[in-house]
Amino acid sequence: MPSDKHPNQPLRVGVAGLGVVGGEVARQLSHRGVDIAAVAGRPFTITAVSARSRNTDRGFDMTGIAWVENAADIASRDDVDIVVEMIGGEEGVALDLVRDALASGKHVVTANKALLAHHGTELATLAEANNVGLMFEAAVAGGIPAVKALREGLAANRISRVSGILNGTCNYILTRMERTGEAFADVLADAQKLGYAEAEPSLDVDGIDAAHKLTILAAIAFGQTPQFDHVAISGIRDVSAVDFAYAAQLGFRIKLVGVAEPGRMPRMQTCLLPISTQLAKVDGVLNAVAFEGDPVGTTVLTGPGAGAGATSSAVLSDLVDIAAGRIPCTFGRPVAALRNGSKVVNGGGPDTPFYVRLMVVDKPGVLADVTSVLQTHAISVESLLQQGRAPQDVVALVMTTHEVSVDHLMKALDELESLSCVQAPPVAMPIVVADQEG
Amino acid sequence: MPSDKHPNQPLRVGVAGLGVVGGEVARQLSHRGVDIAAVAGRPFTITAVSARSRNTDRGFDMTGIAWVENAADIASRDDVDIVVEMIGGEEGVALDLVRDALASGKHVVTANKALLAHHGTELATLAEANNVGLMFEAAVAGGIPAVKALREGLAANRISRVSGILNGTCNYILTRMERTGEAFADVLADAQKLGYAEAEPSLDVDGIDAAHKLTILAAIAFGQTPQFDHVAISGIRDVSAVDFAYAAQLGFRIKLVGVAEPGRMPRMQTCLLPISTQLAKVDGVLNAVAFEGDPVGTTVLTGPGAGAGATSSAVLSDLVDIAAGRIPCTFGRPVAALRNGSKVVNGGGPDTPFYVRLMVVDKPGVLADVTSVLQTHAISVESLLQQGRAPQDVVALVMTTHEVSVDHLMKALDELESLSCVQAPPVAMPIVVADQEG
Repeated sequence: MPSDKHPNQPLRVGVAGLGVVGGEVARQLSHRGVDIAAVAGRPFTITAVSARSRNTDRGFDMTGIAWVENAADIASRDDVDIVVEMIGGEEGVALDLVRDALASGKHVVTANKALLAHHGTELATLAEANNVGLMFEAAVAGGIPAVKALREGLAANRISRVSGILNGTCNYILTRMERTGEAFADVLADAQKLGYAEAEPSLDVDGIDAAHKLTILAAIAFGQTPQFDHVAISGIRDVSAVDFAYAAQLGFRIKLVGVAEPGRMPRMQTCLLPISTQLAKVDGVLNAVAFEGDPVGTTVLTGPGAGAGATSSAVLSDLVDIAAGRIPCTFGRPVAALRNGSKVVNGGGPDTPFYVRLMVVDKPGVLADVTSVLQTHAISVESLLQQGRAPQDVVALVMTTHEVSVDHLMKALDELESLSCVQAPPVAMPIVVADQEG
Repeated sequence: MPSDKHPNQPLRVGVAGLGVVGGEVARQLSHRGVDIAAVAGRPFTITAVSARSRNTDRGFDMTGIAWVENAADIASRDDVDIVVEMIGGEEGVALDLVRDALASGKHVVTANKALLAHHGTELATLAEANNVGLMFEAAVAGGIPAVKALREGLAANRISRVSGILNGTCNYILTRMERTGEAFADVLADAQKLGYAEAEPSLDVDGIDAAHKLTILAAIAFGQTPQFDHVAISGIRDVSAVDFAYAAQLGFRIKLVGVAEPGRMPRMQTCLLPISTQLAKVDGVLNAVAFEGDPVGTTVLTGPGAGAGATSSAVLSDLVDIAAGRIPCTFGRPVAALRNGSKVVNGGGPDTPFYVRLMVVDKPGVLADVTSVLQTHAISVESLLQQGRAPQDVVALVMTTHEVSVDHLMKALDELESLSCVQAPPVAMPIVVADQEG
């Protein structure tokens, strides 16, 4: 499928965006060109670049490389075979550039998950019509070859679940809250100082970035068009440090986990994972993704989810694939064979066990009041912890439930909140068994 | 690179060997043909099979499929485009079949690690000369797409280390010895009853099967010809149940781990892993492989290393790749670009910390005698445990060393064994930090 006009010449690469990742891609191509050509089967040459500031030393020789003021103009250059889009953002220049590049018969390599989650079907259609590759290993889970593993390595499986820790910033914040007992806001502020979180953290901490990635994985896993609007998303802002200790006593850890299953709304949610599962053990800025399928069983991949090195490794692997003629369908099969991702969802999430924390006045009869409400809504308690004894004072009443319908639980929580003994809005998080016991 | 004679027809598959894996491959192709064709871009049809016994019901319809008495004859059939070799063994029919199939311009998909570890260079040369694929995802780590991840997903990296738990039988035995305190021989006997170990267990428990896989991974990782003879191999027969408890006290677990580094002899060895590393947490029949490289960092893949489902998933992914025209060089680059794997090794293993257990008479002066010997050989002790107090009786003296040369250690152990207070041959195992702290 490669539209290879000059098979014996170097492949000509235009890099749009020379930030942390784009700069590293350019440096690797410049400094390790011979190594990379050996595995690619032919050399690469950077012919054009675009970036915000021209007069920055980026650690590679710009001699002979065209400087393009408007990044979108790279799409129409005759001296570019592959456009590496490292601008980011779901609209604007990035979208214009990728659209035009594909329409002009150029391969595109991108790390832009927002773009693919929102415009994946349109762009895949364009790539197919123009017989070029739209490659995005770097868009999901950074250096982990998760896209390739799912799309090719597990291609013949009926995938029954994809679950993952897909945002290193959130995982770092949650890991640190668990270890130190610090509040979310304090850890976030520090993560921003350390460069682990953006000044505007919403994309990360509200789960949006991770949901972009889950959208892409679900599209490949289930052969459907990416449909970001159909992901249920909750971030990590509302997690209290106290819940980590209670969760630990019950045998769980708290993580932001994406779960996608065929025919169900994908969910990006802060949840409890049994400590014995592999995803529960993934700490700090690491990412991990678990694929469950038939006939393979469960495979779990972990590694660095962000950073110049990890992300550039993924970008370069896409370049190598293009050079070697290994150009897959964007989402693993032709667009015409993809089901409509907005039509495959039947209702909300499945029945799930939940963790519930109530802050109650420690007085006789409270437990009877609470369990009576739960019984009314057919919610069955699996385990219950009352933390401390402080007559007439407020204590935490923590429980896990058997599998319950989310609707029933929400109604029960509303009713519980209205009880006179309940002193704060109840906290509830689903319990997810995201992969096999490790 | 595919030699595609009939691009619009189904790809015709000949399956040699209908055992656990071959049978499952055939069943999947028969029962899930539409699904698999959707990702492959074209259908497969099984045209010929060969197996030991003709009159077995294997759960798929054999109507219209040619039964071939001598498996090697599949190589020359005009109605076969791809040969799936599921016979096994490094010589004999498997070798004849693969050789002849490649020479006849047929793609080959195999799970045969012994064949590749011993004859990989010859067979890769044949595949290249005939412009066909020699694919073997199933040969390493079962259902984990480890070969693809390394060869393609991490293609642009300079790999600095590959380490892995590559034999589920050994990992099952070690995990169970650790949990129950049973002796090796007892666990092996039970594993044989459960079907986790072969009646003739040598390939597994002596580390040979795992070393075949490590040979293949090292070839891809470092761009060298596979050279099985240059792997240092020790199995798990000599591990005592007591060592698991001592290792745990020191913060380690005992695993059979393969380690390959550029320019050094690959090692398949029973060793101690720090409990905080990811490989240390891989239990039972699971496999895991860690790739460390620049610029990616460390990626760890875990999953089922054997069994019909996992292995057939890998075989089918190779078939899909062939159908989709994604046919890589056998070991990731052309044979002419591979370095000679027998010439890249400089001396033995690197200096490594060791675990040492001595059974000594509990009497005054023993510690002075032992440490004097260690000092003579420039071996520096990191930590030391004396287990129990039993004056004049035999107790375990357990220590970990700083990094030492294996030569020095061996000399020290010889001398220690000759001390009158030392009552049994010393036990020594290297300590490996196989991946980042998890």
